[in-house]
Amino acid sequence: MDPATGAPIALDAFGADGGFEVIAAGARAAAADGIAVRVFGPPGALSQLDGVEGVEIVPATDAISNNDEPVRAVRTRPQASIALAAADVAAGSSVGLVSAGSTGAAMTASLFALRRLRGVHRPALAVQVPVPGRDRPVVLLDAGANAEARPQHLLQFAYLGSAFASAVLGVERPRVGLLSVGEEQGKGTALVVDAHAALAAAGGIDFAGNVEGRDVPAGGADVIVTDGFTGNVALKTMEGTASAVGAAVRGAARSGPRAALGGLLLRPALGGLRRRLDPDTTGGAILLGLRGVAVIAHGSSGSDGIANAVRLAHRSAVEGAVERTAELLQRSGATRAALRDDDDRDRTTA
Amino acid sequence: MDPATGAPIALDAFGADGGFEVIAAGARAAAADGIAVRVFGPPGALSQLDGVEGVEIVPATDAISNNDEPVRAVRTRPQASIALAAADVAAGSSVGLVSAGSTGAAMTASLFALRRLRGVHRPALAVQVPVPGRDRPVVLLDAGANAEARPQHLLQFAYLGSAFASAVLGVERPRVGLLSVGEEQGKGTALVVDAHAALAAAGGIDFAGNVEGRDVPAGGADVIVTDGFTGNVALKTMEGTASAVGAAVRGAARSGPRAALGGLLLRPALGGLRRRLDPDTTGGAILLGLRGVAVIAHGSSGSDGIANAVRLAHRSAVEGAVERTAELLQRSGATRAALRDDDDRDRTTA
Repeated sequence: MDPATGAPIALDAFGADGGFEVIAAGARAAAADGIAVRVFGPPGALSQLDGVEGVEIVPATDAISNNDEPVRAVRTRPQASIALAAADVAAGSSVGLVSAGSTGAAMTASLFALRRLRGVHRPALAVQVPVPGRDRPVVLLDAGANAEARPQHLLQFAYLGSAFASAVLGVERPRVGLLSVGEEQGKGTALVVDAHAALAAAGGIDFAGNVEGRDVPAGGADVIVTDGFTGNVALKTMEGTASAVGAAVRGAARSGPRAALGGLLLRPALGGLRRRLDPDTTGGAILLGLRGVAVIAHGSSGSDGIANAVRLAHRSAVEGAVERTAELLQRSGATRAALRDDDDRDRTTA
Repeated sequence: MDPATGAPIALDAFGADGGFEVIAAGARAAAADGIAVRVFGPPGALSQLDGVEGVEIVPATDAISNNDEPVRAVRTRPQASIALAAADVAAGSSVGLVSAGSTGAAMTASLFALRRLRGVHRPALAVQVPVPGRDRPVVLLDAGANAEARPQHLLQFAYLGSAFASAVLGVERPRVGLLSVGEEQGKGTALVVDAHAALAAAGGIDFAGNVEGRDVPAGGADVIVTDGFTGNVALKTMEGTASAVGAAVRGAARSGPRAALGGLLLRPALGGLRRRLDPDTTGGAILLGLRGVAVIAHGSSGSDGIANAVRLAHRSAVEGAVERTAELLQRSGATRAALRDDDDRDRTTA
């Protein structure tokens, strides 16, 4: 795998709500930035990409959908677009994977083809949460790769998130918060209390203690770790709230001529905020803890979202996010500790 | 306990961030609505309430703060304002309790003095989440009374929330959603999967299936049940997001003369939205599952928040929320089923 600037990104053409059109437009926009893209899909439906410099179409006609059981589908259908794209990354022909299709299928195909980094038990889905008043997002993980977690998983998430924030976002010494229901060490579930102790004792990360729900959109830490159930609920609650408030502001601007004029005058200034809060801006979630780069874009992505997902995958590869994660885990001994802990647990619960 | 309109509400004067002033102003506003209020606090500091019709001051000088361990403090300091106020409700001199002080102390004092309804294992903290585009809020519980829960607790929460929504909010047949990470029955943690099965099999409630984080601010159900950890994270994430987006909109309106004029013109139309999203509007959380009414207001409540908390307690008492909850639990057999389930669990884990 060569993380040079020219190395291509493998893009799954299936599964976006907007169909092949948004994929093609996204690929074209990324290619215009000088990123090579290998698009896995039906050549006939992607003919608008014919002859576009930097874009190559790799024929794939089978697609795994949200209705398929991911593990079985990925195992039995190696010719499916997501499986071919993941294999392309594993073979070193591409340096990163992007899919806007079934999240389960994309995670499974990535896990099977790219495999976990040495000592990582659970890859985690990391999202960049936009912070309204600040340029740098918060990295929230796990946003839903696994519903349940053990304390040592949350500790590993802290390393995965820190390495990503420093490699890809350029945060020098990322502060890591643990999502809970109060700042005091004893607050939260047994999982959180145990994870707090593990994080406080860990080297190689800058643990900032517990943070609360309101600290996620407020940027109370650079990296916020939690189990995939809580992370997914928090993420979707934020998206829903931002969208409901935005809709209500637009509704207010339709409530009369005076308000309409106000909305018109305010619109340019609100454009930046709207762009920053748009999930398309961050390009999607990234699956951390693998030996390769895998970005999972929103199914609802527009062409900007797809292009930004390709850019995110490319930047992650170029900045050596995987290598730096492996180094941080190795250096801190987090993988050995985690393995020991898991072995103990497996014995006692056997 | 007489839930007649004239029956008083016991109001703890200690613990609000704004001090005795917001408590006094809140009591005065509620009294102006014809609600009798018994204020538990130091008469000297509440002298502005002297002679106000419908307000009575009950002397109390000891206060339990956030720094005290709630259970020990409530047990050993029966003269503390929150303990006296809760005892007043238990004795029938008041019909509901309101406190903006330590949540832990208020919950403990309520639990000790008012006791749980027959068969209820865990009282739950219910909040009314404002829905931007709609008048009726979503009832979310548990918002943090207990960090962890069992499936049968979530089932009981469904009854508690349904009875509240129908008695106090006037929702005829409240639809109950279970907070998860996907709509399919199998999505989520083991707790959620088991709770889904219990809710689907339960009589007396209208179970709408799983809902996701984005359905909370969107009003995807009338009542949404979850464990106290997830509920607290979701609630605070929403509050934080609404406040961050609001701050960013105000910031945009300061970004230039054109935007400032726009903001000025739009402001009256946005006022209604702002009021609706203000936590003060709903008056606070209500502790459900007890034999009496207990409302826990935000520590940051202004006088409007305190007045609305008193109004919420009063309406709950007048509408017989407690009696209707007891009836619904009895009729549905939820308490017997829950007891049986708990007995089984206790045996197997002993």
